[in-house]
Amino acid sequence: MKGLTDIDGVFGAGIFSGLKQDSSSKDLAYIYVPNAVGSAAVFTQHLFPAPSVVFTKKNSQKYTFKAVVINSGNAHAGIGEPDGMNSVKKAAKQVADRLNISIKEVAVASTGVIGVPLPMDLYKNGLDRLLSDVYQKDSESLAQAILTTDLVTKSVFKEKKIGKKTFQVAGITKGSGMIAPNMATTLTFLVTNADLNNQQLQPFLECAIHDSYNMLSVDTDTSTNDMVVIFATGEHKFSITNKQDTESFQELLTDSCVDLAKQIAKDGEGATTVINAKVSGAASNCDARTIAKQVVDSPLVKTAIYGADPNWGRIVMAMGKNPSVKLNPKKVSIFIGPYQLMKSGEAFSFDRELVSSYLKDNDEVDVMIDLGLGRASALAYGCDLTHGYIDINTEYS
Amino acid sequence: MKGLTDIDGVFGAGIFSGLKQDSSSKDLAYIYVPNAVGSAAVFTQHLFPAPSVVFTKKNSQKYTFKAVVINSGNAHAGIGEPDGMNSVKKAAKQVADRLNISIKEVAVASTGVIGVPLPMDLYKNGLDRLLSDVYQKDSESLAQAILTTDLVTKSVFKEKKIGKKTFQVAGITKGSGMIAPNMATTLTFLVTNADLNNQQLQPFLECAIHDSYNMLSVDTDTSTNDMVVIFATGEHKFSITNKQDTESFQELLTDSCVDLAKQIAKDGEGATTVINAKVSGAASNCDARTIAKQVVDSPLVKTAIYGADPNWGRIVMAMGKNPSVKLNPKKVSIFIGPYQLMKSGEAFSFDRELVSSYLKDNDEVDVMIDLGLGRASALAYGCDLTHGYIDINTEYS
Repeated sequence: MKGLTDIDGVFGAGIFSGLKQDSSSKDLAYIYVPNAVGSAAVFTQHLFPAPSVVFTKKNSQKYTFKAVVINSGNAHAGIGEPDGMNSVKKAAKQVADRLNISIKEVAVASTGVIGVPLPMDLYKNGLDRLLSDVYQKDSESLAQAILTTDLVTKSVFKEKKIGKKTFQVAGITKGSGMIAPNMATTLTFLVTNADLNNQQLQPFLECAIHDSYNMLSVDTDTSTNDMVVIFATGEHKFSITNKQDTESFQELLTDSCVDLAKQIAKDGEGATTVINAKVSGAASNCDARTIAKQVVDSPLVKTAIYGADPNWGRIVMAMGKNPSVKLNPKKVSIFIGPYQLMKSGEAFSFDRELVSSYLKDNDEVDVMIDLGLGRASALAYGCDLTHGYIDINTEYS
Repeated sequence: MKGLTDIDGVFGAGIFSGLKQDSSSKDLAYIYVPNAVGSAAVFTQHLFPAPSVVFTKKNSQKYTFKAVVINSGNAHAGIGEPDGMNSVKKAAKQVADRLNISIKEVAVASTGVIGVPLPMDLYKNGLDRLLSDVYQKDSESLAQAILTTDLVTKSVFKEKKIGKKTFQVAGITKGSGMIAPNMATTLTFLVTNADLNNQQLQPFLECAIHDSYNMLSVDTDTSTNDMVVIFATGEHKFSITNKQDTESFQELLTDSCVDLAKQIAKDGEGATTVINAKVSGAASNCDARTIAKQVVDSPLVKTAIYGADPNWGRIVMAMGKNPSVKLNPKKVSIFIGPYQLMKSGEAFSFDRELVSSYLKDNDEVDVMIDLGLGRASALAYGCDLTHGYIDINTEYS
């Protein structure tokens, strides 16, 4: 499959610098888009944002990023100030000097353990080595270097014709635990060949995140380091005032982000099954989103699906938690895959064995809820809760 | 230890009626307070309330309950209407006829699997047998009959002198999973010998629940059947206008409810450790409560404590989730037990082995957070997340 650096004018790679324990892994990466015409970003709303988030957020509106440097193995967060911010600035300066750009054109991202000072000598020496050639095109090592407890790399490459031109979106993401993005996401880096400046890109990105990462939950926990950055290379132009063109581009970008978000759900810590919770017939989009997220957030729904147990009582339980949502129990229908379990608020006769087999045999299952009230709908992504999750999280430190 | 029926004028017992599978267990119980002078109740705010909740809630303001009938093994919820409500009314009528009271003086509570019709013949025959003698005093069988996945019975009996009189509060509770009460709780039944009518009792109960059950979380899931009912026998009077007397009685009732809530946390599904999250120095009570609950709700905090891992980064992570809370990272201090882990927003040097031993050796641990902003505080109760939780919830149906 094609990767991020297969887009013209995009360079990047990853190496092992020593921030992680395992020397067969990678932990330091860069992306360089020397002629970027636009960039946009969204960030965690966490009250303890990492200094990398504070630094990058500050510049994201006013400047167009030309590069991002990413390390894994250390979140570079909770280590006290001004130490945290100083080392972020040092890293940005080193990258800026090497690429001959402004420090304000460099985004900085970190992921890993919180509260452990970053060994700056390893980081600095690693950067020297990583950037000895700034024009590398190694998507695979790049995708590897941003991972933490992830088992697999996660990337996307999509193309779509808008008018006569082929528009591209490529991206990489990481994430497995501590996943319940709040107006942002885990670390994600995207590139498009569209000709869009910062102000044009930002709403496209926010809309894509709204329907992808913001509908994703592995464990309801939220990172201090979440960040999505997108770069635009400016190769092709579409008419920003043409509704069909803008919708096409939005679809391309949203599809790419949904694809990445679902890869995270699939690689959720200990997960064996992706859960798609589809809510339709809601009175408002907000209601639909709330209920869909409550279903994928519920430990009792997640363990029932792990146990291949068609216990729709737990789905009902998860749906009703928020008293502010508009809902009439007598109008609710529930399906698991093709099987109806509840109709007009009453138990619907179904074959337990068949539904249990559906849950057992598929690594991606649909829970569909029709509220029977209106026309709003939403789709949330999650995963089951298993012994693997407990194993991973009692040992990680 | 003394039980509910050790209060004068309080009768009750439990039997096995066949609603559960295991004939060595109990599943049907009653409490009868023939001369009750007052009663009060709080209920789940779930959008799919069980018919027993709807029925009991409707009468709770206007009538003084004289009895409650409780079954376990079947939640009597999600089975469609009017069937659900009809069978609740039938049960209440059977009890009312036998006790020679109004149907509106009977509270009905159910707990167990959602969505399975209640076998009315078993229930009816069970009630006949249970109420063959209405003046039983068997607290132990009563406490047993309201349990579901609980491993142990949970009861409290407290006494306190107010003026020259000894006031009593006794209670039983159940709950192990699906615990994150929302303005209510799991099933809890309390009796006091105070002379208080409905209007006087209700605010005492709501205040006690606010600081006990509403600060309790096992798994963030919320029941369709939650209910707390308290009866007052009227034996002793205190002055409802005397501040010291009312505060004393409030303390007695709140302490009793906190005691019961903590018994639930201790018996949380799969739990090995109770977590007390104490937040002080908050700008508002609401902020303190939000952060304390976020800490006990976080799967990553819960698994870290299960793993005896003093990973304070996860506590920071859990604290910062809600952007609307007022918080200054630079003023935050964090303690686990007697050990300080963070000071003024920075890592504080501590002995990992010592803290790990503290987490390993105690079946109840304190996580203390000082926000350094104001004088508001809160205390939330939770438990760790273990392999046992997954085992229980992949098998239960």
